[in-house]
Amino acid sequence: MSNSFDLSRCSLNTATIKHATLTEAVTTAAAAGYGAVGLWRDRVQEVGAEEAGRIVRDAGLRVSSLCRGGFFTDLDVERTRAAVDDNRRAIDEAAAVGTGELILVVGGLPANPEPGMGVSPDAGQPERDLGAARERVGLRLAELVPYARERGVRLVLEPMHPIFCADRGVVSTLGQALDIAAPFAATEVGVVVDTYHVWWDPQLAASIARAGAQGRLAAYQVCDWVLPFKEDTLNSRGYVGDGYIDFEAITGWVRDAGYTGAVETEIFNTDIWERPFGEVAERVAADYAERVLPFLS
Amino acid sequence: MSNSFDLSRCSLNTATIKHATLTEAVTTAAAAGYGAVGLWRDRVQEVGAEEAGRIVRDAGLRVSSLCRGGFFTDLDVERTRAAVDDNRRAIDEAAAVGTGELILVVGGLPANPEPGMGVSPDAGQPERDLGAARERVGLRLAELVPYARERGVRLVLEPMHPIFCADRGVVSTLGQALDIAAPFAATEVGVVVDTYHVWWDPQLAASIARAGAQGRLAAYQVCDWVLPFKEDTLNSRGYVGDGYIDFEAITGWVRDAGYTGAVETEIFNTDIWERPFGEVAERVAADYAERVLPFLS
Repeated sequence: MSNSFDLSRCSLNTATIKHATLTEAVTTAAAAGYGAVGLWRDRVQEVGAEEAGRIVRDAGLRVSSLCRGGFFTDLDVERTRAAVDDNRRAIDEAAAVGTGELILVVGGLPANPEPGMGVSPDAGQPERDLGAARERVGLRLAELVPYARERGVRLVLEPMHPIFCADRGVVSTLGQALDIAAPFAATEVGVVVDTYHVWWDPQLAASIARAGAQGRLAAYQVCDWVLPFKEDTLNSRGYVGDGYIDFEAITGWVRDAGYTGAVETEIFNTDIWERPFGEVAERVAADYAERVLPFLS
Repeated sequence: MSNSFDLSRCSLNTATIKHATLTEAVTTAAAAGYGAVGLWRDRVQEVGAEEAGRIVRDAGLRVSSLCRGGFFTDLDVERTRAAVDDNRRAIDEAAAVGTGELILVVGGLPANPEPGMGVSPDAGQPERDLGAARERVGLRLAELVPYARERGVRLVLEPMHPIFCADRGVVSTLGQALDIAAPFAATEVGVVVDTYHVWWDPQLAASIARAGAQGRLAAYQVCDWVLPFKEDTLNSRGYVGDGYIDFEAITGWVRDAGYTGAVETEIFNTDIWERPFGEVAERVAADYAERVLPFLS
């Protein structure tokens, strides 16, 4: 089909149609007239990164980002080494698939070593030193940046909604992400604005402007905050326009910060995952056209 | 029973034993050796505020705070007038029950007028201008402060976890609460630190210090962030020590900020609500003694 609106900056993140194979996702996005796709590693690994890049290019699409590296806040030396190795593979995949932006969900508070190892009175309980976990994010970036730079890949910190601070992402605000990014060049470490994660932040406008001024605004992802939560709280996000988020305001801040890249719609929602892929892609494109595109330039 | 540790600053919030009547809650707290109780308005209204104050005093306890006023972010004139009137009643109740601290949960993004009134293309959808809703908090405070001041009651802003931004509290960080409080005297508008709501904040230590320096630190509430969420996400909070929050660090910041008031344990948890009141009070006191008291002075 062809749409009457410009979808060249509209990107479909594969997590929105979670059950689609890479080829199905790419075909769906191309058929709906999108300009790009955002890829998750599971879909890339299905066919291999080189082949995944070819499939996307052959469909006339761009890869707006690869999700995701990170999960490197552990205390344990062996698990940390494994995490760094996995992030190197993610960097390789980003380069091979044809994107310069690797999104990082940094990880939460790690578990202490299990009881029986006898290293701590809190053995088996969560490690609670949030400041230390946040410092480890900077340490892991320092390890990974040279490797990523050689491959033309930027590491992109994703501030996560504070609901995820304990178990997924100790980087909780865009301002904090920029503080952690500060020791690195803007071409080395960037940030992503995902409306779901940051919409509530009283400092959001200022932090987006700061990210833009520094040249670190690497990606813009959209989905909505809807209530009530479903039983599966964390997969209860909504289509753009169905919830509480002010897309006109946030998109305007992103525009004013000089962002000219793609807008990825990434929705974790178990109901949406059950719908036909084409139906979801059409709805996402229509929401983009109505709620985002008018404020993007 | 008598405990070997000092519970003079330990306060039992009635929400922790939600199904207890006021008299049951006071009896439970006194029997477990607490120094204070934090009261919710429903329990106060059960017997009337004067009588509630008498019941607490007769048991040898103090009232550490009254929960809660607020919910005054509406756009609608009539609903706003009703909310302000209700907050005046809450101020009266605080004074009558014997506390100078009225905690405010300010409210979320209001609904737009319903379709049919034809005032907006978004009629019936949430009002999405978060900045405007936040400004209305300051306007409502300005209306209420003279009334509260005359009655010796401080209005205490409660920053809420961003999970509640849409529907309960548009004040999302302690720093933002202090910004909103700034036009008022410290004796007029204070702030509360509730560990559940603010533990993730990268600026928490600095904001607590700022609150202390300004003399605005009006209350300290504790409960833990536990995972996984229960089906009833919002009533899934945990006993102090059962989750991810670093009570040593946060309590230390509160202490260093000069706070000398009570520590209220306020836990919303459907399982805990089903337990015998005395059992809960004993557990709360033991957690306080182990996880909070050592860092409080």
